[in-house]
Amino acid sequence: MAPASAVQRPAAFAVEHRDGAARTGVLRTAHGEVRTPAFVPLASHATVRSLQAGEVAELGYDMVLGNTFHLFIQPGHEHIAELGGLHEFMAWHDPIVTDSGGFQVFSMGHGSVAEEVKRRNPRRDGGPNVLEIAEEGVRFRSYLDGSERFMGPETSMEIQAALGSDVVLAFDECTPFHSDRDYTARSTERTHRWLDRCVEWRAEHDAGGLFLGIVQGGVHRDLRHASAERIAATEAIDGVAIGGSLGQDKEEMREVVGWALEALPDALPRHLLGIGDVDDVVHAVGAGVDWFDCATPTRLARHGTALVSDPEARWRLDVTRPPSRSSREPLAQGCPCPACRDHTRAYLHYLARAKELTAVRLLTLHNLTFIATLVEGLRDAIREGRYAEHAAAVLAGRGPYAAGA
Amino acid sequence: MAPASAVQRPAAFAVEHRDGAARTGVLRTAHGEVRTPAFVPLASHATVRSLQAGEVAELGYDMVLGNTFHLFIQPGHEHIAELGGLHEFMAWHDPIVTDSGGFQVFSMGHGSVAEEVKRRNPRRDGGPNVLEIAEEGVRFRSYLDGSERFMGPETSMEIQAALGSDVVLAFDECTPFHSDRDYTARSTERTHRWLDRCVEWRAEHDAGGLFLGIVQGGVHRDLRHASAERIAATEAIDGVAIGGSLGQDKEEMREVVGWALEALPDALPRHLLGIGDVDDVVHAVGAGVDWFDCATPTRLARHGTALVSDPEARWRLDVTRPPSRSSREPLAQGCPCPACRDHTRAYLHYLARAKELTAVRLLTLHNLTFIATLVEGLRDAIREGRYAEHAAAVLAGRGPYAAGA
Repeated sequence: MAPASAVQRPAAFAVEHRDGAARTGVLRTAHGEVRTPAFVPLASHATVRSLQAGEVAELGYDMVLGNTFHLFIQPGHEHIAELGGLHEFMAWHDPIVTDSGGFQVFSMGHGSVAEEVKRRNPRRDGGPNVLEIAEEGVRFRSYLDGSERFMGPETSMEIQAALGSDVVLAFDECTPFHSDRDYTARSTERTHRWLDRCVEWRAEHDAGGLFLGIVQGGVHRDLRHASAERIAATEAIDGVAIGGSLGQDKEEMREVVGWALEALPDALPRHLLGIGDVDDVVHAVGAGVDWFDCATPTRLARHGTALVSDPEARWRLDVTRPPSRSSREPLAQGCPCPACRDHTRAYLHYLARAKELTAVRLLTLHNLTFIATLVEGLRDAIREGRYAEHAAAVLAGRGPYAAGA
Repeated sequence: MAPASAVQRPAAFAVEHRDGAARTGVLRTAHGEVRTPAFVPLASHATVRSLQAGEVAELGYDMVLGNTFHLFIQPGHEHIAELGGLHEFMAWHDPIVTDSGGFQVFSMGHGSVAEEVKRRNPRRDGGPNVLEIAEEGVRFRSYLDGSERFMGPETSMEIQAALGSDVVLAFDECTPFHSDRDYTARSTERTHRWLDRCVEWRAEHDAGGLFLGIVQGGVHRDLRHASAERIAATEAIDGVAIGGSLGQDKEEMREVVGWALEALPDALPRHLLGIGDVDDVVHAVGAGVDWFDCATPTRLARHGTALVSDPEARWRLDVTRPPSRSSREPLAQGCPCPACRDHTRAYLHYLARAKELTAVRLLTLHNLTFIATLVEGLRDAIREGRYAEHAAAVLAGRGPYAAGA
């Protein structure tokens, strides 16, 4: 299917090299450039857990993701604005993308949507409650103090503007996997109306930052196409994010992402929301995704799991398991991270089992080094026109570290 | 009172400069030298929480303290020995002092001894249980798995030898503050008998590392004198630690430490156990203490409190309190730590209240930088013969950072 529109955009994004559908490029923001394809680590709570902002930059990341919902709740966007905005607040001087808050707000509303979208177990924390979902927006109780709060498209834009985001995401409803076609169609329509309200607020308030619409449409090809076309035809956008339920397994996910991509104009940059498994990254980049954020590398680290070049183990090494107990090996041969440079699996096994903070930090450094190396390798491969071979090598476990890894 | 003995020792410790009772020196161990006076950060669980070993060395520390009791329970000293010893296990290549396990084991036995000795609230965790305290040693239940364990002088020596400790502490009973004179006298006698058993085990097993006896005697001058003399007269020791209950307030503590010091020969190095408040450090060094370990700097960090040059606030700044909420100041002007270099109190306030690991790490880095700077300043002042003025300046809040701090 041909791109639905070819709207002229200010050149915030420029493709530099192509290899099949994959491309390298550069996104220009008020706080500098992002080399794409890019992985965007989560600084949901104004910090990449256990790291300083400067350390994240040193790992090779150009952009982090701030969480609109969480920062709205604590410490509050006005507070951050008073302190000079999110960049200054967290001492991160490079680009920041902020999600819209929709995913979190609807995770509450739909019960276990976050887990369902991600195919995980339902949350057990009881969590906060949604009081009402309406055309206007969502009323809910703060998980911090039980106070009643509201978030709608305008709130989301206001928060993201107060944070000083470089890449603002439209407020969307993130439909759960169990939604039927009819609900998904109506919800996607509402997401489109909310997009217009976001655009309107941004125009009225002369809001800064690049602006991304979010493609919804669930697991329905026609809805994904229609949504992609509608978003791409919206004058004010600088790019597109792909969100919502991407299906029940990796195969369906790739298919659904493909539907969105095939309906998007080539010139617009594409952010794939919440995807970060090694094989998913390799496939998404191969399909033309420009950047993606995901909690997985940092969350796995907090649970004692390191990323390794082992497809059969889903690229995961749980160091708390017995095989690491007496291993003098590093997590990964050839990995330049501090964990691999200085420490054995045995030490990390012990630290993780003893719930020592040092384990979280070391595994976070390792996993983010692993992903940075992976993505750098993907960029190089595209530039050099050898993406297919490189992708196959990574998927076979021969990467991201050099042979012998 | 004159030193009780002047036993010839191998020159493990050499005094370099003196200023009144204060002295600088150097302790020579199998893993290098320790410049004294020295603060010894706690790596109780084979890590200084949230830091890598190499980072602790970079902060200017020459030695860390490993916890015999905790490492006995998890992961076990045999396991660490199989992996090459504690230095290799935790990738710390400089000197390690290990406590004897006595303090922890008797903290369990005497209920709240740890908190009482430190004048804190009784523990509320229920904790592990001591089954029997006898001449042979102590039987107790592991807090990890409830299994029955035993520790006596020989066990403690065996564990410390397996860890590869550079500075081994004798197994002692740490009497609680509420003990009467009679109990304390009998307990101190037993500690002395245990010292002999430690010496015997070390001789039989040709154990390495320097060896320190521990002066007990509670808050009784004659018992402290007698204990100091008995320890100092023990042929096999390389130094002395001052332990046990040091009284109910800072004044009594200084008096009790003074009693121990006045009965010790000048040539022996002195480790003051578990003391680390700024004023206590300044007084102890002035009285002739050579090194000291303490949980305070790192524990305060975990609870959101930074060390600052403010005697009226007991050198503490609780960043979780309202005054830090919107402060763009660093924790301390002139402090070279990453927290002060890059971040505002407002950011640390937020991180600490949000229970973010980054707060623990940044405050740990700050507090250990503060103490390292303090102790370096004390060493310089002794060398330059101006300890009294320098101590007065620090105690008045004009240090450890330069004026304007």
